[in-house]
Amino acid sequence: MNDLETYVRQVSRDARTASQLLTTASGATKNAWLKRTAELLRARQSQLIDANQQDITRADEFGLSAAMIDRLRLTPERIEAIAAAAEEIVMLADPIGEVIDSSVRPNGLNVRRIRVPMGVVFFIYESRPNVTVDAAALCVKSGNAVILRGGKEAFHSNHALHALLTEALTDVGLPPTAVQLVNTTDRDAVGYFLAQSGLIDVAIPRGGKSLIERVSAEATMPVIKHFDGICHVYVDRGADFDMGERIIVNSKCQRTGVCNTAESLLVDAAIADRFLPRVSKALQEQGVELRCCERSQPLMPGSIRATEQDFATEYLDLILSVKVVDDVHAAIDHINKYGSHHTDSIVSNDLPATEAFCARVDSAAVMVNASTRFNDGNELGLGAEIGISTDKFHARGPCGLRELTSYKFVVHGNGQLK
Amino acid sequence: MNDLETYVRQVSRDARTASQLLTTASGATKNAWLKRTAELLRARQSQLIDANQQDITRADEFGLSAAMIDRLRLTPERIEAIAAAAEEIVMLADPIGEVIDSSVRPNGLNVRRIRVPMGVVFFIYESRPNVTVDAAALCVKSGNAVILRGGKEAFHSNHALHALLTEALTDVGLPPTAVQLVNTTDRDAVGYFLAQSGLIDVAIPRGGKSLIERVSAEATMPVIKHFDGICHVYVDRGADFDMGERIIVNSKCQRTGVCNTAESLLVDAAIADRFLPRVSKALQEQGVELRCCERSQPLMPGSIRATEQDFATEYLDLILSVKVVDDVHAAIDHINKYGSHHTDSIVSNDLPATEAFCARVDSAAVMVNASTRFNDGNELGLGAEIGISTDKFHARGPCGLRELTSYKFVVHGNGQLK
Repeated sequence: MNDLETYVRQVSRDARTASQLLTTASGATKNAWLKRTAELLRARQSQLIDANQQDITRADEFGLSAAMIDRLRLTPERIEAIAAAAEEIVMLADPIGEVIDSSVRPNGLNVRRIRVPMGVVFFIYESRPNVTVDAAALCVKSGNAVILRGGKEAFHSNHALHALLTEALTDVGLPPTAVQLVNTTDRDAVGYFLAQSGLIDVAIPRGGKSLIERVSAEATMPVIKHFDGICHVYVDRGADFDMGERIIVNSKCQRTGVCNTAESLLVDAAIADRFLPRVSKALQEQGVELRCCERSQPLMPGSIRATEQDFATEYLDLILSVKVVDDVHAAIDHINKYGSHHTDSIVSNDLPATEAFCARVDSAAVMVNASTRFNDGNELGLGAEIGISTDKFHARGPCGLRELTSYKFVVHGNGQLK
Repeated sequence: MNDLETYVRQVSRDARTASQLLTTASGATKNAWLKRTAELLRARQSQLIDANQQDITRADEFGLSAAMIDRLRLTPERIEAIAAAAEEIVMLADPIGEVIDSSVRPNGLNVRRIRVPMGVVFFIYESRPNVTVDAAALCVKSGNAVILRGGKEAFHSNHALHALLTEALTDVGLPPTAVQLVNTTDRDAVGYFLAQSGLIDVAIPRGGKSLIERVSAEATMPVIKHFDGICHVYVDRGADFDMGERIIVNSKCQRTGVCNTAESLLVDAAIADRFLPRVSKALQEQGVELRCCERSQPLMPGSIRATEQDFATEYLDLILSVKVVDDVHAAIDHINKYGSHHTDSIVSNDLPATEAFCARVDSAAVMVNASTRFNDGNELGLGAEIGISTDKFHARGPCGLRELTSYKFVVHGNGQLK
């Protein structure tokens, strides 16, 4: 075992030990840690900004774009926002100890399924330093120890934040190894962590597709994956046209670089000639480039012709593919074929159409008369989220506190034998 | 792509198509299929026994032991038991469509989390032919298509059972490809199936450790794993001695070759000199070999000395390791270190001891004053099970219908924008 592997093994073991102590930590203690973290964030503002400045100074070395440097930057306002986010997690109900369901068996055994922490989370992420505190807060509140592996671009910022998180842990009597930051940017370290299936219970990569693919391929433990969002808005013959226009404009334009933004507009053939010209204008006023099928292009002046590939593309930009479909069933078939099972919306006041859409579209979130942008932990009522799962296994859609937990069966008897 | 890979791809695609149709199949239709399956099992008894005889005749070729041949054999009684098991699944509530939870958001969005099928299950198992029907019944009742890969020893039996299952599917108007049996015993086929992560949603291996390890290593989709059961009974100073004796004898001896049987007895030092001599006699009368720690050996005449390795061994035999521990906390630490997080039992009438045990033992099932043997889908009220998960992710402990499902967020609005 080389030095790096020995280090990884020790970090993983320390995390496991901390997780055993966290299992029985009270909600009050975990909340005290979140409040103390928020206090320290505010008190250490200038030190945090100094550390962040070291990262900003080196940003050119890593070839960061202006947008990436902006995301990396810590300001007094952003530090306040991080502190406020930690305080919001205080307000969320503690998921641990919940009796999920229970029954008394005919032989008198009392069976309860009780929510427990997952154990140890390995969280791999890229540049934004606020994610360091958000992820630690969600993991510890749900009773888990976390091993944080941040991006090399944010190395100094993350170290300053991590020092503060562990100081707060010590202050409230929780093990400081409940939150560990990997102290090397060596890429091989990730591989060694992904081999620790006996000590790490779940790996959560948050970043680009290549990161997620690497983690999925190498991990020996379960992975919460977050792949593409190829999201659709389907405007049905039963739609209110004004609502349809507002929803597609919002779903496409409110924020283009995120997974729950719409990439494709489907329109019922029965209304295409009336609906498409008006929405074409509204979208082009927002600067959206339209890539249309054969039937929609003549109805959308200024659009260009889409290729087959367009309908399977996550643009993350002001580009929208458009297709005319024969009816709601054709829309559903298109979505299940070309979509990424993330978020799809129908605009219609026709009950059979919306019911068919909800039943048959195989996506993490199905929206009726609402923007695709609402697929988000806060918007759906889960509170803060550590990611959005595109898997069907364990967690689907936004992952909040509950999705970081497991359960155990607790069975009370009075001497029953099988 | 070679012929085998083309075949695997086609089977996986057909399963995906069938799963889309199953998503909206009614509970009545799925139950009609189960009832028709039971009818056909009874009607085709002699053909099934003929097919099974072909496997029995070849059993020597595969080097099967007498016990393995017995497990492979179909008799009129066993066929009736398989039919009755299918009828029992009719009685279980349909999990699909359940509203798991719901909320109305401040902006009026109505958010529901609705239980949906997982999609396509790849189930890999070994010899017993009844598993073919059990697994198909659980998968289809929970709205999933299933690809069955049985053992080569049961090839003819499985083909006869599969023909009957698909006939019943056609009879009730469900797609026959909802249940497919892999028509080759080529081991490479398993590898190709494990690469179909876009078409198969979960792989479930049921068999020996090497099978589960192979599937875990190769699968590109999530796997429900079922590893060792190193289960403990801890007899505390607060125990009723009679109950303690009955529970350890039942946990060890009721059936030795299964995962929820006890492999280790821990006894509180405060009662060791009174409890161990009597239980030593009771266990040795059942033919149990006792492997003891330094402190317990003098109290158990006829026992031998345990090695460190004994405490980490799943014997699956009439052998029990025995250790004296200082108190309930030492018992918990021992279990979390040497156990396999499967099933552990405390015998005690002392509330703080049982509460500490339930809170801190990190196992799928924790029993108080009951045999470890109760960790079983039927006993815990889940109904039939497709396996017992030793993971914490998605499903922990017995996996019944509910554990074969996922969920989606279904969101209704009236034009909300973000």
